[in-house]
Amino acid sequence: MATLSDIGLAAAINILTAFAFFIAFAILRIQPVNDRVYFPKWYIKGLRSNPLSTGAFVGKFVNLDFRSYVNFLNWMPAALQMPEPELIDHAGLDSAVYLRIYLIGLKIFVPIAFLAFSILVPVNWTNSTLERSNLTYSDLDKLSISNIPRGSRRFWTHLVMAYVFTFWTCNVLKTEYEIVAKMRLHFLASEKRRPDQFTVLVRNVPPDPDESVSELVEHFFLVNHPSDYLTYQVVYNANELSNLVNKKKKMKNWLDYYQIKYSRNQSRKPSLKVFIVDDILLKSPTGFLGLFGNRVDAIDHYTSEIEKLSREISLERDKIVNNPKSIMPAAFVSFKTRWGAAVCSQTQQSRNPTVWLTEWAPEPRDVYWDNLAIPFVSLTLRRLVIAVAFFFLAFFFMIPIAFVQSLANIEGIEKALPFLKTIIEKKVVKSFIQGFLPGIALKIFLIFLPSILMLMSKFEGFISLSSLERRSATRYYIFQFINVFLGSIITGTAFQQLDNFIHQSATQIPKTVGVSIPMKATFFITYIMVDGWAGVAGEILRLKPLIIYHLKNFFMVKTEKDRKEAMDPGTLGFNTGEPQIQLYFLLGLVYAVVSPILLPFIIVFFALAYVVYRHQIINVYNQEYESAAAFWPDVHGRIIVAVIVSQLLLMGLLSTKEAAQSTPLLITLPVLTIWFHMFCKGRYEPAFVRYPLQEAMMKDTLERAREPNLNLKSFLQNAYIHPVFKGEDDSDSDEAPEEFEKEPDLVPTKRQSRRNTPLPSKHSGSASSSMREAQDYPLL
Amino acid sequence: MATLSDIGLAAAINILTAFAFFIAFAILRIQPVNDRVYFPKWYIKGLRSNPLSTGAFVGKFVNLDFRSYVNFLNWMPAALQMPEPELIDHAGLDSAVYLRIYLIGLKIFVPIAFLAFSILVPVNWTNSTLERSNLTYSDLDKLSISNIPRGSRRFWTHLVMAYVFTFWTCNVLKTEYEIVAKMRLHFLASEKRRPDQFTVLVRNVPPDPDESVSELVEHFFLVNHPSDYLTYQVVYNANELSNLVNKKKKMKNWLDYYQIKYSRNQSRKPSLKVFIVDDILLKSPTGFLGLFGNRVDAIDHYTSEIEKLSREISLERDKIVNNPKSIMPAAFVSFKTRWGAAVCSQTQQSRNPTVWLTEWAPEPRDVYWDNLAIPFVSLTLRRLVIAVAFFFLAFFFMIPIAFVQSLANIEGIEKALPFLKTIIEKKVVKSFIQGFLPGIALKIFLIFLPSILMLMSKFEGFISLSSLERRSATRYYIFQFINVFLGSIITGTAFQQLDNFIHQSATQIPKTVGVSIPMKATFFITYIMVDGWAGVAGEILRLKPLIIYHLKNFFMVKTEKDRKEAMDPGTLGFNTGEPQIQLYFLLGLVYAVVSPILLPFIIVFFALAYVVYRHQIINVYNQEYESAAAFWPDVHGRIIVAVIVSQLLLMGLLSTKEAAQSTPLLITLPVLTIWFHMFCKGRYEPAFVRYPLQEAMMKDTLERAREPNLNLKSFLQNAYIHPVFKGEDDSDSDEAPEEFEKEPDLVPTKRQSRRNTPLPSKHSGSASSSMREAQDYPLL
Repeated sequence: MATLSDIGLAAAINILTAFAFFIAFAILRIQPVNDRVYFPKWYIKGLRSNPLSTGAFVGKFVNLDFRSYVNFLNWMPAALQMPEPELIDHAGLDSAVYLRIYLIGLKIFVPIAFLAFSILVPVNWTNSTLERSNLTYSDLDKLSISNIPRGSRRFWTHLVMAYVFTFWTCNVLKTEYEIVAKMRLHFLASEKRRPDQFTVLVRNVPPDPDESVSELVEHFFLVNHPSDYLTYQVVYNANELSNLVNKKKKMKNWLDYYQIKYSRNQSRKPSLKVFIVDDILLKSPTGFLGLFGNRVDAIDHYTSEIEKLSREISLERDKIVNNPKSIMPAAFVSFKTRWGAAVCSQTQQSRNPTVWLTEWAPEPRDVYWDNLAIPFVSLTLRRLVIAVAFFFLAFFFMIPIAFVQSLANIEGIEKALPFLKTIIEKKVVKSFIQGFLPGIALKIFLIFLPSILMLMSKFEGFISLSSLERRSATRYYIFQFINVFLGSIITGTAFQQLDNFIHQSATQIPKTVGVSIPMKATFFITYIMVDGWAGVAGEILRLKPLIIYHLKNFFMVKTEKDRKEAMDPGTLGFNTGEPQIQLYFLLGLVYAVVSPILLPFIIVFFALAYVVYRHQIINVYNQEYESAAAFWPDVHGRIIVAVIVSQLLLMGLLSTKEAAQSTPLLITLPVLTIWFHMFCKGRYEPAFVRYPLQEAMMKDTLERAREPNLNLKSFLQNAYIHPVFKGEDDSDSDEAPEEFEKEPDLVPTKRQSRRNTPLPSKHSGSASSSMREAQDYPLL
Repeated sequence: MATLSDIGLAAAINILTAFAFFIAFAILRIQPVNDRVYFPKWYIKGLRSNPLSTGAFVGKFVNLDFRSYVNFLNWMPAALQMPEPELIDHAGLDSAVYLRIYLIGLKIFVPIAFLAFSILVPVNWTNSTLERSNLTYSDLDKLSISNIPRGSRRFWTHLVMAYVFTFWTCNVLKTEYEIVAKMRLHFLASEKRRPDQFTVLVRNVPPDPDESVSELVEHFFLVNHPSDYLTYQVVYNANELSNLVNKKKKMKNWLDYYQIKYSRNQSRKPSLKVFIVDDILLKSPTGFLGLFGNRVDAIDHYTSEIEKLSREISLERDKIVNNPKSIMPAAFVSFKTRWGAAVCSQTQQSRNPTVWLTEWAPEPRDVYWDNLAIPFVSLTLRRLVIAVAFFFLAFFFMIPIAFVQSLANIEGIEKALPFLKTIIEKKVVKSFIQGFLPGIALKIFLIFLPSILMLMSKFEGFISLSSLERRSATRYYIFQFINVFLGSIITGTAFQQLDNFIHQSATQIPKTVGVSIPMKATFFITYIMVDGWAGVAGEILRLKPLIIYHLKNFFMVKTEKDRKEAMDPGTLGFNTGEPQIQLYFLLGLVYAVVSPILLPFIIVFFALAYVVYRHQIINVYNQEYESAAAFWPDVHGRIIVAVIVSQLLLMGLLSTKEAAQSTPLLITLPVLTIWFHMFCKGRYEPAFVRYPLQEAMMKDTLERAREPNLNLKSFLQNAYIHPVFKGEDDSDSDEAPEEFEKEPDLVPTKRQSRRNTPLPSKHSGSASSSMREAQDYPLL
């Protein structure tokens, strides 16, 4: 049992660590040479093109103005100064709302901590249960619920406090949901014209023997949305092309590398060894494969390779555009008005609900192109597979790791790679391997976990990056809940817990977990300091991007444009960041009644994280997409889950404390909370899922009044082209877009049976064309 | 333990009872005097106006054609002859699809019974576990899974059979879902023009200080659906009026009664005693209150009363039409096209998702008028209240009944009503009260249960009779599942079960229930025969409507029209009938693997019920509404629940039989079944919830081609008027409808701030009016 002074020491160490990070950051960030690592956002926005240097040559790399070293924390007030509307303008709504999660943390926990310390702590402290018992205990435990004797009337305080805390949390949640919903609607309403406002993504276009996908889409929407339909953009299967383009980009990087190497040392022409294995060209400038093969001139080699690839790319491009099979059964359909798009995205188009699936198109940069063509049956199957896979991942992930650990012992390595025997047998190496390898296997798994979860979401078939991240975040939260939260409270692997739980009664589970909670308070305090405080402080240092940027800058940067590309601003990383915050909500709410001593640590985390991430959002991160805070219902839902978990665990804990008369009162709490959640869902969630017609109509009307002669078609024509077709940095891609502008306004039907009928009139409102359509889709 | 011969005897008794019912029915139905009881449907449809009599005077009442008595079962083939499309035409899609539930029962259980008897029964029978054990057992038990020794390899047969049965059931369910979805779409597509196709119900019209509800609705839809909006119909709060009208109808019945009495016995003018208590006129022609008061002429009295009420009604009617406060914040909004209505019903209108709630309007006769004005917050609160109330009803309903039973003993009655003491003290009466009263309290509760559940649904705020019935059916099913199914398997009240269950582990519950299942087979066989067979046979006799019709016919019928009203065809009663069928599905699926002997009894039930209900639907029932089989997703979902319950219980049973190696294989079954359900939900359910735009557009286009000059507005104008305003049988209601036709085509805005702007142009597409609207609904 840790004493107060133990915790104090740990806190001091962690505070010092955090300070060390901050000082390092303060020094590194004002060096002009690091400017692009710590302020990339400003470069990307075009507001800064050169570091603010002190003039002299050295001043271009090192900051010589010693005054700027004095106030090493002055970035903090600077980060807080920017008002929210400006922040939304600067970094987007997603980022601004993301920061509100930390603010909610403060709004919930500061009053709760105040109440807990002024009411609960005295109530707990003024007992002597622990003193009279034979248990070892610390001052910390005297502050917690453990110090209350069994069946004491003092538990009524905790019960009332549980109500107060729940009420307060729900109150904050409701207010925030309302604010965020308004912010989202305001953001959508005040946004400038964007292609996704007019566009709907249509998936599962049914196959048709007589007509191509393009013709089918054109016909279908001309008939069923006659007054609003404008144009469409088919989706090409350009995965192969995008591979080639990526390959070319890599080659170019190597070319740049060798050209710089040559320009620095003109005496020696760089060369590399090339050898041919089964028609696959393996190039290895470094590494042990570089030992064999023919030595060639590196610059010449890459130049010719790039030329070859350019030719391949243009061939592939032609193939995609001309081959109807490369058109996927999906399309981006654009409408003349936002109203038309809102209508189409919210309604069911066809009598078969698995074809002509329409949904609001994500932003062009938010689209995840690979998943656009997955058919409905496959989607449901994928969902089943991933659900089962995730279940096993969450509960049984220790099994393969234990297997790897058992392999990764000295004997296993010696067997597999006998030539390493001499090195391994050295004592230092041996003890290192024996001590660290098992831990490393687990650590590597945990590092790769977000990527694994992201892969799962991709396999599941989501079509936008934002939804991929949201789903991954949900899974990551569940994983953390099971393996970090429950796993720390009840020792044993997740599988053992599962086994315990299904053999325990529904009332026993909260008891089992609830009883262990007070004992784990010190563990979680340490966890918050190491993972939370130090983690946040480390975040601001950006050690990894710093190193990579300088390596790239040294080896590959030729022009300013290259330097711009070498910057890696990174993103907020919703899929990993948000579940981590949620864990702190969970801890805070669970311990609020049980051991209030935890709360100050959580408050420090939220405050620190708020400042740091606000700084990062202003100066560093560059969001890949803008979902207009579409993730808020998830955030809200997970905090609600935390509230309910805390209530159930308190119920379990109190029932072991023989305060059984409180059970009925405690049962009503989760019921009320669930009802509150349902109320919020009905009241606010639609704002995050649907686009109200009133809003759409209003924006349409305003626009029509302001710009009566707007040519919307040309604005929308190329908005949803696969990024490889756009390729601004690719000189030979300029021809491509024209291909997409040639779509005829009207596609004559190609149906065999109807070849001899006259061409349909343009507007399907007339009887003839719709009658034809009616016949084409017979009644049963 | 019942033996085979016991079951045989019970079956014989029940078969005889059923036959007795059938013979009674066969005799009663061919009497011309009962014609309106057994063939009301034909009278309502206007296909029959007089019983087919044999000519003579007596023949008008009694059938003298003795040949027709011979083939007393000839109604059965007659009921089966009508083909399904004709049945849909004759009785509506709801009824036709309702019959398919019985057919599904046959489709599922006939092949399963065949397989079970050819494979499972021999496997069970050829063991000797029971013979060797000391337990008493019957031949019936030898056919069941109880006869297999612990840990036997023969359990693999049951496992495989569980897979086969699940697969077969899912297969039938999928096929049926597909067929019913197609039937529904075809029905909707081939329907003739109906007001609800063009109409959307708008609820929660937000209050506005400057404009009335009518103006607000008109403005909102003119602006947001400019091209399709046609007209609207506000909803009046006519509950008071409808009370008055009902009162008048009752008075009229009494007047008729006395007039007939007088015409039969002209010597004595009928009179009744009237006395005044606190301004309330108590009239009691019979009963003990009739002993006091002034004797007046009955016919004069009722005539004057009716006149008085007529005046009140016309006053109230004027009040409603002229008082803006009697307009509820809801409206039926009609569109020019089905497409427009489909769009409006499927989209969100306002940025605040709790106002301007639109949904597809129910049929005019399906509307439940009282609930149209419940605000959103109240709705969510009501849902919470009802959820909690139903929980207590389902688990604790025995408590008040036990309380009533404890009151309703001899001493309690003597105390409350001392003057009955002399009667009660008689021995016969005493033993009757002591023996029956406690049972009667429970029986009365069970009789009133459907009404209680219906009241709950009404309180919850559903706005159509069909949705009220669907919700009541769900609750009734849950109640039956807990109290009949579980309650019979594990003895004890529902509350005791609940208490057991929450103290048992998740794996223990299926074990506890599963183990008791084989032992209860004989009980459920008896239950099926008494409740199922005899119940169905009793249904066709229609004893209650028969008696009531003849009473009414004798006392109150003056004209043919009165006689028509005296007919009570009744309805299918989805809210009680469907949950009962579902109980048989549950029993059949649970016992299919465990005790296949139950299956033939269930098959007989389904076959019998199918024939009987087909007859009743053709000849008797008159549906109050037509929901186009909107209940099918519920039916499907409950059968899926039954499948999953059967799988879990089998898992529990097998785990006690030490066939643990089968557990992983058994766990995958519910997972697959749930996935199958999700697949079906995505694939077919939208057809029951939304109206595809393609369909709407097709029907619109066809109609426009056929009837280019249709005046839709006049067709829709009075479709959604509260039934009391229509009142065809009320002479003084003729003036009212005109009031509703005077709605101006355009409502000038009344907003104070904009009085001085010119009148808005008619189409909101123009900038001025929409800009105004945009200002009226400011951005935040």
